[in-house]
Amino acid sequence: MFEFEITASAGAARAGRLRLPHGTVHTPAFMPVGTQATVKTLTPEELAEAGTEILLANTYHLYLRPGADVVRALGGLHRFMGWDRPILTDSGGFQVFSLAAHTEVREEGVLFQSHIDGSRHLFTPESVIETQRALGADIVMAFDHVPPGDAPRSLAAEAHERTLRWLARCQARFAELAARDDGTGPQQTLFPILQGGTDPDLRRDAARRVAELGDWHGVAIGGLSVGEPKPLLYQTLEVLEPELPARWPRYLMGVGYPDDLLEAIRRGVDLFDCVAPTRNGRNGTAWIEEEGQVNVRARRFRTDPRPLDPDCDCYTCRRYSRAYIRHLFVAGELLGLRLLSLHNVRFLLRLAERARAALEDGTFEGWCEEWLARYRARAATEEVGS
Amino acid sequence: MFEFEITASAGAARAGRLRLPHGTVHTPAFMPVGTQATVKTLTPEELAEAGTEILLANTYHLYLRPGADVVRALGGLHRFMGWDRPILTDSGGFQVFSLAAHTEVREEGVLFQSHIDGSRHLFTPESVIETQRALGADIVMAFDHVPPGDAPRSLAAEAHERTLRWLARCQARFAELAARDDGTGPQQTLFPILQGGTDPDLRRDAARRVAELGDWHGVAIGGLSVGEPKPLLYQTLEVLEPELPARWPRYLMGVGYPDDLLEAIRRGVDLFDCVAPTRNGRNGTAWIEEEGQVNVRARRFRTDPRPLDPDCDCYTCRRYSRAYIRHLFVAGELLGLRLLSLHNVRFLLRLAERARAALEDGTFEGWCEEWLARYRARAATEEVGS
Repeated sequence: MFEFEITASAGAARAGRLRLPHGTVHTPAFMPVGTQATVKTLTPEELAEAGTEILLANTYHLYLRPGADVVRALGGLHRFMGWDRPILTDSGGFQVFSLAAHTEVREEGVLFQSHIDGSRHLFTPESVIETQRALGADIVMAFDHVPPGDAPRSLAAEAHERTLRWLARCQARFAELAARDDGTGPQQTLFPILQGGTDPDLRRDAARRVAELGDWHGVAIGGLSVGEPKPLLYQTLEVLEPELPARWPRYLMGVGYPDDLLEAIRRGVDLFDCVAPTRNGRNGTAWIEEEGQVNVRARRFRTDPRPLDPDCDCYTCRRYSRAYIRHLFVAGELLGLRLLSLHNVRFLLRLAERARAALEDGTFEGWCEEWLARYRARAATEEVGS
Repeated sequence: MFEFEITASAGAARAGRLRLPHGTVHTPAFMPVGTQATVKTLTPEELAEAGTEILLANTYHLYLRPGADVVRALGGLHRFMGWDRPILTDSGGFQVFSLAAHTEVREEGVLFQSHIDGSRHLFTPESVIETQRALGADIVMAFDHVPPGDAPRSLAAEAHERTLRWLARCQARFAELAARDDGTGPQQTLFPILQGGTDPDLRRDAARRVAELGDWHGVAIGGLSVGEPKPLLYQTLEVLEPELPARWPRYLMGVGYPDDLLEAIRRGVDLFDCVAPTRNGRNGTAWIEEEGQVNVRARRFRTDPRPLDPDCDCYTCRRYSRAYIRHLFVAGELLGLRLLSLHNVRFLLRLAERARAALEDGTFEGWCEEWLARYRARAATEEVGS
């Protein structure tokens, strides 16, 4: 269990298979985000039909609402939300620093106020592991100190060091709970999160010291995609790549947009999550292979009988016209949010599937270059033309 | 085409089959409302799977947005919205009187301002028939003057007389367009709408004079379910029942709630439409066989692992717990709106199916009494207990 097998590669890029208690994930893989135990607007059947092999849920949100006790009483997150494939839960580190109010970092943990009702809570490395055990995801994340994207080096270094200290505490509590289990608890693995901002030395140090702490089944790269310039994101991935054992699947948190996904895959990343496909979907923004990122309310779609993306095989593109989807958004109809969320999720899943297929048949580098050039050219035209 | 065959009856109640260009409708039948060419939050596949045989769309809304020209350019309403079973379009009569602003009734038609952008429009009996031809529904409705539910008799009488004059004009334009058709246009039938408030004499007069105007394929009862006391609704149906030719399917507009549906079926009504299942669904209100009308946010559902309605066979009840549905509503998740809309729609469709089955096997009267007594008893308990 939790084995990761690399089946093909090209430069730093790899295709692989990650065995998890609830199924096998083929990488590179995009994980749709089910923040509150639901990928917004979509059912588990729709996600599975779109090719989702693993999805993400958020400990911070589920701890606050409905509460980990409720999810446990209902048989864990898989049964609660009706999803029988793998799940990864984020630890809440990112959310307490980005969503909560009056956040106070102590060595013990983080004191914060709920963004929902202002109630006060303390997350510690130990409590977060306990909550994630109650939720029962296949992969759980260590609790990390996430500094702002533009944090000075001193704060990035402090957050990096604290994240390592907290990782050891997460690891200890994780082992304790697993040892105490009577065989009825969930089978889980713990992924460490690397911090260190965009500082190459801190990132290298994070990779080495995390490896010293244990032989993990995978590792997450945190603290990126938080507003830093794109070149720094890519450069940080390049710094990390040779430092990370090849046998660990690498999860880049909070990415991505289509081009970032490919840029990260070619730099050795295997797993991704991002709310962009569903958030964009609810905002009326679609990814279209030949046109880049498009606002579906555009007047030019008014009587357009074509599918949203003629290249796409999703339910939305198989069944509806651009004119109808535009109408749904202009008229404020909720079905539009569903159809576009589904399309965007499928768009990213399919992009990862295609990257994987290109890796398997040895055409990755050319395909990737070509795809990015075309997508960016169209996206640029679109911006000028819209 | 458009034949209505009665296959069983009990007192005034009937079970039947209505043949329409896009399929056969088994009556009594509930028509989910797809106001803007979408039944809010649901796909055509979900509606079909729930047992929908016909749905309703609104001429007023579609005329304003996206415009009948757009729908026609996309191949008509069926293709536009991806629904290949029968559709009925309402004429806009009800909406111009209930939704639009600065409505001015003239003999020619109704001048009104759009509720969306305040733009000025004129609906005439002729224009409404033309718009409905562009939309292409199987059944189109005559343009009616809909007075308020508490209108004095003089206004009810005036609206009734005008509705009859407008019916003759609708009929003439409908025949003209059909005669002009080259065989590529939609096959449609026109239903008259009876007005007359809750005045028995006006209602009898409406029934007789509509019959004098033509041998229709069906008739609609308008101007009810607009705030009048329930006994007056039921009494008006009893007044109309012996006046209406048995061979016409009878469509009671804007009904209903579960108990009204059964009360109307036992008084000879065959077709129904109402936004209640989807509107309630979006508001967090569920119909539950053993509990009546329930707010799914209720704290008692917090860890309840049972289906919302253990008697129900809908997707929502087959797949999710009350605890999960409560969570979705408390957390403001759009999936909750979908799941509850679907359940409520299935609840009404199934109620009509069960009424039909009871008619076919000769148990209708006892079943109906028993169902109503139980539903009302539980609903009363629920009110006290909640």
